[in-house]
Order: sequence, then structure tokens, then C-alpha cells
Amino acid sequence: MRSDDFTALTAPLRALGGGRVWSLMVSLFGDLAQEEGRAIDGPVLSAMMSLLAVRPEAARVALHRLRNDGWIVSQKRGRISRHALSAQGLAESAAASPRIYARPEDRAEAWQLVLLADPVTEADEHARLAGFTPLLPRVYLGPEGAPVPDGALALPATAAPDWLKKEVRPAALDTAYADLHQTLAALSTALPADVAEIRPIERAVLRCLIVHNWRRLVLKHPMLPAPLVDPAWPGHLCHLEVVALLDRLPCPALTEITAELATA
Amino acid sequence: MRSDDFTALTAPLRALGGGRVWSLMVSLFGDLAQEEGRAIDGPVLSAMMSLLAVRPEAARVALHRLRNDGWIVSQKRGRISRHALSAQGLAESAAASPRIYARPEDRAEAWQLVLLADPVTEADEHARLAGFTPLLPRVYLGPEGAPVPDGALALPATAAPDWLKKEVRPAALDTAYADLHQTLAALSTALPADVAEIRPIERAVLRCLIVHNWRRLVLKHPMLPAPLVDPAWPGHLCHLEVVALLDRLPCPALTEITAELATA
Repeated sequence: MRSDDFTALTAPLRALGGGRVWSLMVSLFGDLAQEEGRAIDGPVLSAMMSLLAVRPEAARVALHRLRNDGWIVSQKRGRISRHALSAQGLAESAAASPRIYARPEDRAEAWQLVLLADPVTEADEHARLAGFTPLLPRVYLGPEGAPVPDGALALPATAAPDWLKKEVRPAALDTAYADLHQTLAALSTALPADVAEIRPIERAVLRCLIVHNWRRLVLKHPMLPAPLVDPAWPGHLCHLEVVALLDRLPCPALTEITAELATA
Repeated sequence: MRSDDFTALTAPLRALGGGRVWSLMVSLFGDLAQEEGRAIDGPVLSAMMSLLAVRPEAARVALHRLRNDGWIVSQKRGRISRHALSAQGLAESAAASPRIYARPEDRAEAWQLVLLADPVTEADEHARLAGFTPLLPRVYLGPEGAPVPDGALALPATAAPDWLKKEVRPAALDTAYADLHQTLAALSTALPADVAEIRPIERAVLRCLIVHNWRRLVLKHPMLPAPLVDPAWPGHLCHLEVVALLDRLPCPALTEITAELATA
């Protein structure tokens, strides 16, 4: 694509306010290099950061921080630096990926209501009720089969009334999800009909922006089982759009991008 | 039985503080004359009231009140007044009887948790959630098959954790149930081994006192399904004792009592 066109295409996604550069870089490595032995050459990373409208100095600072945090390791190979996820970075990316890349059809088909003997603190909730959404004090909803705290009552269910679907959604994220949905829908319309017009590096950058904005919302709450999803919920509409876009923009191989830059 | 012995036997039950004479009379008619066409002769009623240690004047006042309230109708037959439940008295007695005379094995084998879309007032609770016990705001437990308000979520269940059995019991009645249980257990021990030693009118009076004290507690809360009953709950221990005593003291026919009094 023409550089101006690409800048215009990505501007709304970049404008969503997706946090810090290091966080954007975490999304990029997670999408592109989440496999042991995969590394991104320095010039490739620089070219992608440039397409993401990140200044070189800001990119260097972010990379430095991620190395200090033990998320990324860098190695010199000849004159070129190669950057890869560390063992910790790989492990944390792998832990988040099932949630980020889940497809709507991956949602649990059945759910369960859990009633606890006593109210628990929020910390306890996270530790003992992973995957569950709080509904009332002592009452949680989650996917069938998710482990339940000892002694709790767990009642299986398949259907759910509409009011419950509305109530159980993470309402605090409604605006953010609605904004992202609108942006993704506009991107979907604006993308060239022939995806071959999009270069591999542009695909990588588009995917990075989509995954990054999605990840920031979706990792804030557990995945609801299918019967608890309101089909009109902006979070669900976003999900459909994210999956359709990532399908349209398959993840390029790093070698493709490197080869392309070498011939540029 | 000797009159003194009977007075001593019934004293603890009478001492439980079972409310007003008219209420005792409601229990008596409900137990003894809950069938259309059954009437209690004035002298029989007086004799029973005397065994219940009710003064004649107090009995007359209570009877007057029940007639005014439309619960009892009295007819003269020759020189004798005959007292019977009115149509309304019969209907209300019949409505309460299944709960009062239920046996432990009549409890529902399965239960359901009901989650309402919104909290309801206590009046609404009575109207729309008959048979259900409130657990949390919007959460009710009741027997399987009990009608559920429109739009509510109902989740069927069979087992229940021990803490839930303890929580769902009507805890405000613990002391009253424990007192009644102790009194009934003592009565059970004190009763003559040979029930034939107990005259029909004494059986009627004992039953009246048992039913009366039981009724005043059991009608204050719905019957819990079997899986939600804590076996150590005083209310359950009472229930077992009530059923065993009423089995030991079968309801006499009114004719038996009349005949006995005539020969006395």
C-alpha cells in the first residue's frame, strides 16, 4: 500500500489510546514471534515500529525496558541485533494467547452457577475462581467444568434468561468495546478487497494493532460461556470482527518480512 | 389415666406458651373435626377444654370469637349445642393440613435454586415465591417443580453442601424448635407403654397440644426439600417426634368420645 494510505488506514486504531510503546511491543512479539527460536531482526523491528508511528527513540526505550523486565532477550548476530521473547515472555504470552485468540465457537457450551459458603475477597476471587464472573456476593457464573472452590455448591446450566446475559457482561467496558467495534468495522470496510495489495509487514502491523487493542480489553475479564453471551453486547460484536480480520490478514512469516525489506 | 397424671403429663406442652385459647380451639377442630358434617357436641368440647386446663369462661369467649370470625358455626340440636368448622374454617384448615401433617418422607426429593432478575418486596415474595426460602437477595431455594416467577432462572439440584443446609433453616425458630423437641421427647418417654391406658378424649387432647405447638412453628416457614434438611436441625428432630407421637396416638372418632362421656 502507499505509505500515506497505510498511515490513514491505521490512524483510528492507533488513536484508540492503546497505552505504552512497550505494551504495543509485547503485542507485536506475542503475535509474530511466539515460538521458541523465533527472533525479530533489529531492522525489521524498526521498520514495523515506524509503520506503527513510534519514534525510534521511544522504540529503543521500550526495548530497553522489556529487556530489563526479562521479557525480551537481544543477541548480536554479525552487525545485526536479533530480539526474541525470553522464556518468561514466551510463557506469559502463551498463557494469554488462548484468551486473546479464542474464537466465538471456543466458548463453553454449558455453564455453572457457583454459590460460596462465605463472601470472599477480590484476591481470593482471582485465586480460587479463575474463569468465573461475579454476579452477587457469593454467587459466580462460569464455564462448565471450571474448577470450583472446595465446599461450594455448583449448579450446572445450559440456557440463561436475557436479563442475566445483560447483567453478567463487564458493563464497565461497554464504551471501550463499542469504540473498538466501530473502529474495527470501519477498518474492515476500508481494507483493500484484494489482500495481496497489503504487504507482509503491513499485515504484521495491522494484526499487531488489532490484537493489541483487543487484548487490552479482553484480558480484563473472563471469557463467558456461550449461553451467557448477549448477541448484541459490543464485546461480542468486537470478538466477531477481530476474528474475521485476523482471518483475512494471516500472520506473515518473519522470513517473508525480512526478504521483503532486503529487496526494498 | 388418673386426672392428676394427665395434668402432669400435659403441663410442659401447655407451658410452651401456645398463644390464645381460640387458636388452641382452631387446632382442636382442625385435628378432630376436619371433615364436612363433623361436629363437636358442647359437652364434649367443654370436657376437652377442661382437660386442656382452659377455664369455661375463656372457652366461651374463644368460641364466640371464632363464630364471629366465621370460622365456626354452632347449631342447637335439642338441648345440646353442636359446633363445627364453617366452610371457611374447613377450607383454611384443609389448606394448612398438608404442611402440618406432612411426614418427613413427603419432602421433595429434589430442589431448585431460583435467581430473580430484580430484588422483590416481602409481599411479592409471598405472592410469587410460595414454598421458597429466601437465601440471598434475589436468590431463593425451593422444592423441584414449585412454580417459578416468569423470567426467573431456575436451576435444578439434588444434593446440597452441609453449610447450605445450616444456612437455609429458619434460624429464628431454633430455640422454639429445640424447646418443643425437648418437650415432645419427654412426653414420648412419659406416655404409658400401653396406649390403651389413654382414654379417647385424652388422646384427642394430647394430639391437640402436639398439633397446636407444632403448627405454630411449622406454618411460619415453607417445607424444605429433603436434600436441604440438616439432620441435626431441631426443626427436623421435632418433625420426627411429632410424626411418631401422632402415629402412637391415633385420632379418636368423635362418637368414641361422646360414648365415653355418656357412660362416665
